[in-house]
Amino acid sequence: MAKRLSDQERAITIEALSDWNHDAERDAFYRQFKFASFVDAFGFMASVALVAERMNHHPEWSNVYNRVDVVLTTHDAGGLTSLDVELAQKMDALARR
Amino acid sequence: MAKRLSDQERAITIEALSDWNHDAERDAFYRQFKFASFVDAFGFMASVALVAERMNHHPEWSNVYNRVDVVLTTHDAGGLTSLDVELAQKMDALARR
Repeated sequence: MAKRLSDQERAITIEALSDWNHDAERDAFYRQFKFASFVDAFGFMASVALVAERMNHHPEWSNVYNRVDVVLTTHDAGGLTSLDVELAQKMDALARR
Repeated sequence: MAKRLSDQERAITIEALSDWNHDAERDAFYRQFKFASFVDAFGFMASVALVAERMNHHPEWSNVYNRVDVVLTTHDAGGLTSLDVELAQKMDALARR
């Protein structure tokens, strides 16, 4: 099972993932992605879904037309783990395409 | 443009769509769908996305693992229209498969 990030790891990660916000209460990352259309937004979600399923680590997310709001945290660990960092990086990469 | 339901149409619709709840403040329908897995939940969302895009009428929805929470309303009309009724029926049918 993924271990919760140490305080030092968390600080470095928050600095590195500059497009993401940190919810200290839940120890979660959140970010809004905006696209040109619903097709683009859902295309992004479909790509992320495949990546998430392969990782066996899934986002909490909502979609309204061209917007996708994402929350990442690891429930089993009670906060952020390396899985959240990896999924955040992969989502950023998929959103840039 | 789709016209907002009349009071009579709304009453009939709320009665007919028994798995959906009515948010009177927003004049919206909402429902939670639960599936066996993330794959099933996202498979449902992918089917609905194609239907919604073809209708040019999209849900507000969120997904956490095997759960999908949906809100249906027609922003342009300021409340429920026949488009919401149609999309709700189609989502019910897709979820039953």
